[in-house]
Amino acid sequence: MKIGILGYGNLGKGVESAIRQNPDMELAAVFTRRNPNSIKINTDSARVLSVDEIESWKDKIDVLILCGGSATDLPEQTPKYARMFNVIDSFDTHANIPLHFENVDKSAKEGGKVAIISVGWDPGLFSLNRMYANAILPEGNDYTFWGRGVSQGHSDAIRRINGVKDAKQYTVPVEKALQSVKNGENPVLSTREKHTRECYVVLEDGADAKQVEHEIVTMPNYFSDYDTTVHFITEEDLKKNHSGIPHGGFVLRSGVTGFDKEEKHIIEYSLKLDSNPGFTSSVLLAYARAAFRLYNEGQKGCKTVFDIAPCYLSPKSAVELRKTML
Amino acid sequence: MKIGILGYGNLGKGVESAIRQNPDMELAAVFTRRNPNSIKINTDSARVLSVDEIESWKDKIDVLILCGGSATDLPEQTPKYARMFNVIDSFDTHANIPLHFENVDKSAKEGGKVAIISVGWDPGLFSLNRMYANAILPEGNDYTFWGRGVSQGHSDAIRRINGVKDAKQYTVPVEKALQSVKNGENPVLSTREKHTRECYVVLEDGADAKQVEHEIVTMPNYFSDYDTTVHFITEEDLKKNHSGIPHGGFVLRSGVTGFDKEEKHIIEYSLKLDSNPGFTSSVLLAYARAAFRLYNEGQKGCKTVFDIAPCYLSPKSAVELRKTML
Repeated sequence: MKIGILGYGNLGKGVESAIRQNPDMELAAVFTRRNPNSIKINTDSARVLSVDEIESWKDKIDVLILCGGSATDLPEQTPKYARMFNVIDSFDTHANIPLHFENVDKSAKEGGKVAIISVGWDPGLFSLNRMYANAILPEGNDYTFWGRGVSQGHSDAIRRINGVKDAKQYTVPVEKALQSVKNGENPVLSTREKHTRECYVVLEDGADAKQVEHEIVTMPNYFSDYDTTVHFITEEDLKKNHSGIPHGGFVLRSGVTGFDKEEKHIIEYSLKLDSNPGFTSSVLLAYARAAFRLYNEGQKGCKTVFDIAPCYLSPKSAVELRKTML
Repeated sequence: MKIGILGYGNLGKGVESAIRQNPDMELAAVFTRRNPNSIKINTDSARVLSVDEIESWKDKIDVLILCGGSATDLPEQTPKYARMFNVIDSFDTHANIPLHFENVDKSAKEGGKVAIISVGWDPGLFSLNRMYANAILPEGNDYTFWGRGVSQGHSDAIRRINGVKDAKQYTVPVEKALQSVKNGENPVLSTREKHTRECYVVLEDGADAKQVEHEIVTMPNYFSDYDTTVHFITEEDLKKNHSGIPHGGFVLRSGVTGFDKEEKHIIEYSLKLDSNPGFTSSVLLAYARAAFRLYNEGQKGCKTVFDIAPCYLSPKSAVELRKTML
């Protein structure tokens, strides 16, 4: 399978690395909106090209992985390129998924291609686990906790404050709440009771720490509904101890069975990830394999993780899977 | 969907209860090898019939759930009834799955029906999680821990010892080993290091406790490779404190990504179940829904959990799933 990457940020780089772990895949080309000469990739055998040339690669790439952002890139890119390529994206603006699906479905069908959208871990693997658990335990409660991990959006929000040079924000699940769910207590949890927010902030010279802290903890939507702690640290400390992009979280369903609903069950799925883009890109590649297979079976249109039979993700044959993994 | 149950033991009773939690399903009939008059079920609207009458129900049941055992019942029953009905079984003799699949596939294809085998949590949901995690993280290690839960096979093995009146055996994961895996330490674990076995034994009058204990802890295959503790208790105590059938366990994959494989990730799936048959039967029903839908799409033959796209398990439409769960 020949893979193309559009966008060479953290996610694109992750896809490039992950391809090396999948012997049935090969990186054909990286497409960029920047000057291709300014980009040095890690794969000698692959080309770096301007996105303007992408159409001429229509028949040289089996699956194109779209590594842009959900805010402005993917709503435009995924429908556009689903006409020419089998595509995978990680569109993660939950509320806009139905509209995005429609747009992508239309153009993928027109192009006779397969597109799989909203692939990753949330949306993605977490969604799958919510869905499986709900189908199996129709009566129960769902809980999703995120973290401990870096929220890019919240880090950016802090960086926009006057006097802030740099910042990193961690979303942290509240241990007590998580334990209560795991114990089957079915707690009703407010936003504040589920997660705390930890901020590591580097100030500009002469900035007013008290004022910055006040602006952070009272910021609506981002922080005001949470217990937020702000740590002021040096630039060196930030670089040394907070340069990673770890993330993860928990999806739990607490449900009941039995004639009198007397049996309690807890289904839990959790991820502990050193690198959010490193992991997400590995999920994208597994679904790229599925997209290519579905395309070869003559399918077309937009799909999500809900529509893909698990066996399509694995390089192993059905016989081998039954023998070794069932 | 009209559901039939073959076999009214713990699993069959679980399926009966679970049907009440799925508004799109209805119990049509319970078939038994015993005298139907000797069986009282909990669903007024359903019939209890001898298995000899099952063939005449061919067109009155959408999916038949086979609730027999894997040792002798299912190898014979699933191929036999897959000719007449869409069927679901929980065949769990891992080593014999390929052969069972072949037999069932042949007769389901001959009958134009859909059969889904080895449904439950292991094989079943645990298999799914092993497979997804391996497809996503091609380089890593797999770990499965079972328990804390009742092993029927081990309890039966103790009951066969001279001087034992009754017994219950719990399989318990070793906390230290589990933690080491969760920490990403990739330990190499012997059988003894992964699980311990706890036995609760009621002796016959005059039995030799020392001798019984010796026979348990030295029993090959079942106990000799484990650290086993034996507690002698009264019949009342056993009834009061050990009458449940809880189970559960953990499936973990510890893998790496990154250009230099510098990023570690842990994927964990766990179940904590008050009732093994109560939960298993709920999984069977979700896959019964899938079998019926696949049949209505014109599919036939044997499938496993690997072959079923997740959306088939849910009563919700694809549009609704994307809107609410993705």
